[in-house]
Amino acid sequence: MGKRYADMNADERKAELKRLEAKLEEVRARGLKLNMTRGRPGSGQLDQVNDLITILSQEDHLSEDGSDCRNYGGLTGIPEIRRAFAEVLGIDAANLIVQDNSSLNIMYTLILHALTFGVPGGDAPWGQNPKRAFLCPAPGYDRHFAITEHLGFDLITVPMTATGPNMDMVEKLVAGNANIKGIWTVPVYSNPDGIVYSEETCRRLATMKTAAPDFRIIWDNAYVVHHLYPDQPELCGSVPEILALCAEAGHPDRVLQVASFSKVTFPGSAPACLAASKTNLDWYLGHIQFRTISPNKMMQLAHVRFLEKRGGIANVMRGHADVLRPRFEMVLKILRENLADSGLAEWHEPKGGYFISVNLRPGLAQATVNLAKQLGVAFTPAGATYPRNNDPSDSNIRLAPTLPTTDELKTAIEVFCLCVRYCALTEGNAK
Amino acid sequence: MGKRYADMNADERKAELKRLEAKLEEVRARGLKLNMTRGRPGSGQLDQVNDLITILSQEDHLSEDGSDCRNYGGLTGIPEIRRAFAEVLGIDAANLIVQDNSSLNIMYTLILHALTFGVPGGDAPWGQNPKRAFLCPAPGYDRHFAITEHLGFDLITVPMTATGPNMDMVEKLVAGNANIKGIWTVPVYSNPDGIVYSEETCRRLATMKTAAPDFRIIWDNAYVVHHLYPDQPELCGSVPEILALCAEAGHPDRVLQVASFSKVTFPGSAPACLAASKTNLDWYLGHIQFRTISPNKMMQLAHVRFLEKRGGIANVMRGHADVLRPRFEMVLKILRENLADSGLAEWHEPKGGYFISVNLRPGLAQATVNLAKQLGVAFTPAGATYPRNNDPSDSNIRLAPTLPTTDELKTAIEVFCLCVRYCALTEGNAK
Repeated sequence: MGKRYADMNADERKAELKRLEAKLEEVRARGLKLNMTRGRPGSGQLDQVNDLITILSQEDHLSEDGSDCRNYGGLTGIPEIRRAFAEVLGIDAANLIVQDNSSLNIMYTLILHALTFGVPGGDAPWGQNPKRAFLCPAPGYDRHFAITEHLGFDLITVPMTATGPNMDMVEKLVAGNANIKGIWTVPVYSNPDGIVYSEETCRRLATMKTAAPDFRIIWDNAYVVHHLYPDQPELCGSVPEILALCAEAGHPDRVLQVASFSKVTFPGSAPACLAASKTNLDWYLGHIQFRTISPNKMMQLAHVRFLEKRGGIANVMRGHADVLRPRFEMVLKILRENLADSGLAEWHEPKGGYFISVNLRPGLAQATVNLAKQLGVAFTPAGATYPRNNDPSDSNIRLAPTLPTTDELKTAIEVFCLCVRYCALTEGNAK
Repeated sequence: MGKRYADMNADERKAELKRLEAKLEEVRARGLKLNMTRGRPGSGQLDQVNDLITILSQEDHLSEDGSDCRNYGGLTGIPEIRRAFAEVLGIDAANLIVQDNSSLNIMYTLILHALTFGVPGGDAPWGQNPKRAFLCPAPGYDRHFAITEHLGFDLITVPMTATGPNMDMVEKLVAGNANIKGIWTVPVYSNPDGIVYSEETCRRLATMKTAAPDFRIIWDNAYVVHHLYPDQPELCGSVPEILALCAEAGHPDRVLQVASFSKVTFPGSAPACLAASKTNLDWYLGHIQFRTISPNKMMQLAHVRFLEKRGGIANVMRGHADVLRPRFEMVLKILRENLADSGLAEWHEPKGGYFISVNLRPGLAQATVNLAKQLGVAFTPAGATYPRNNDPSDSNIRLAPTLPTTDELKTAIEVFCLCVRYCALTEGNAK
């Protein structure tokens, strides 16, 4: 990579600037129009699961319990799809229900219902507490933070570490403040860092003392089976089973777990599940029974048949991994080639999930994203991975390698590295 | 038919009682187990639309706007399905959005969001008003009433007339009480009476003065295309277009209209729409964007292709009418043969929808349903068509002729008539 900018003398910096400006001109001349903003699967992944579209015959509409999936009924989802999710999560099918898309919808509903009705163990609806707050491990998932912001919570940022949220801080906060009603988590291949929570982190979350008796962990197991490498646990083995951990610790109602097949098959057209204690499930069902008679059971049945045909979800996910692994590795390679030892950027090398998270030298993120945008490459906005879009050190950028073609991806990441270097070199001037 | 019970002398009553008791014994001996409680389509109707299951090929996943229905995106639904609903409702596709199942889900969300955030034109979330109230035309749809009961509204019963809710009463109530935030309506083939609102009723709803500036009509057009007879308007012609009426009256934001394809294709697996002013749609989208990225567009596309193949929704509904018309006519025939001029029951003869509503002589409904249950025939619970399950005259029973086989239906209605007669004759004794 050559010298760090910090070690260059004035002439060297000038030469480097000239080199970068020439490259910028080249890129500008190409008139790029690339979108790297969101974690959507690419068409290569979607094509892999296309037989879901035609998996059902006209005679195939009965669930194993005899109910006609074409008609009303069955609030909890058909038994077969509940078992499919149970296998993914390593729990009993009785501990989960399956609804339509999406896990986001379920999480929003959980929080809104907690606001309106309260949750088991609490003494009032959360909405009656104007000081209600939620812990937001960051960098994290912008849509999580947005739900609690929209619903009037104070968002308390907790830094992520290599083993999950900073648990010393979490424990101290929840023990001392009964207004803190919950924490957002993505325990496996966290969005965006790709971090897998350590066993200790899981255990401390399950056992910690909370001032709020109705504290809830939203356990968003979005990437539980989204491994990139064959040496990883096939299904749920990455972290301890959290429902059991919480129950053992005497807090059976603490955790609300969601998972989804949106990134197994078709985003928006796939089932999602809620896994929780019987008390929590009864609470949830007791409220949603007023808004729905039953989920889309035909869609659930189609997923069951599709997974049967493919020999199980682990096989399907291996197919996705074969598409995604080269993309992740290419991004990491370009980052290494352009930014390793530069002192300008650090990143994780995730073993699964949907993102690569880059931490730039503080103060560079916004400028980098802006410059890339001028060059026709849209990245997730700087700050998006922090509550209220406020990354205090203006450092984190989420790269989403799944959607573009590999050629586009290569170009986009090269442009990204170029922008980082240019912004770092011109930082003084720009300000 | 013979004499009315009221005109019989003691001997005649004795003879009649003996006749009915013999019949009851006959029925009891049959050990029936029939469920007539809910408005679900029967398998004959579902079979009619079975090609929906296989309508998409693996190559057929692009919307006309170029978006891949297999992926995230498009909060408002694909353009084709919006046009399909627009045709049904006789409005511009820009005035509606299409979501997943169900219209019930949309209505619940509308009310819960009004509770939490307030609606355009209001000065506070409805939830801040502990005296909030909702008008419930009755007999009406139990799930409507249940939503507002669950969400803490005072339910104010308004009697239904042959032309819709008693508008003198509605106008007086809403003009004098700002706590009344809305009214439930099923304008076409009302549940359960099968009444079509008159043009005057629609116009008065649109123009009436309301003390609440944020008053809303929930216009549940559940049966807009569910005609039983060929001489009826094909699509939305049964009532005036309510969005336009409200806009003309200077109240563009007053009405929130929903409709659904659940009883066109497969209940629970079909799209539903919200039609409203731009202000209301923007309000709704502004909130649901936090809970969903996009609806199930594959399901929407399948419905579009299915309707194309069948030459439009009116053709599909004619097929359903051919299944349902003989059932409705059989029920009405049995009612006439057994109860006409008896002084014990009156009923509507609906031209569409899903129900036949019978008003028994006051005080007979609960006893009739109980007796039928002892005989193995479950009807919708007495009172279910009234707010808080309280039918003040214990009179109304909702018959749902769609789900059972025709043989079962014939038996069930005969048993119903027998129970009405027996309860009427023994009423004095029973009490």
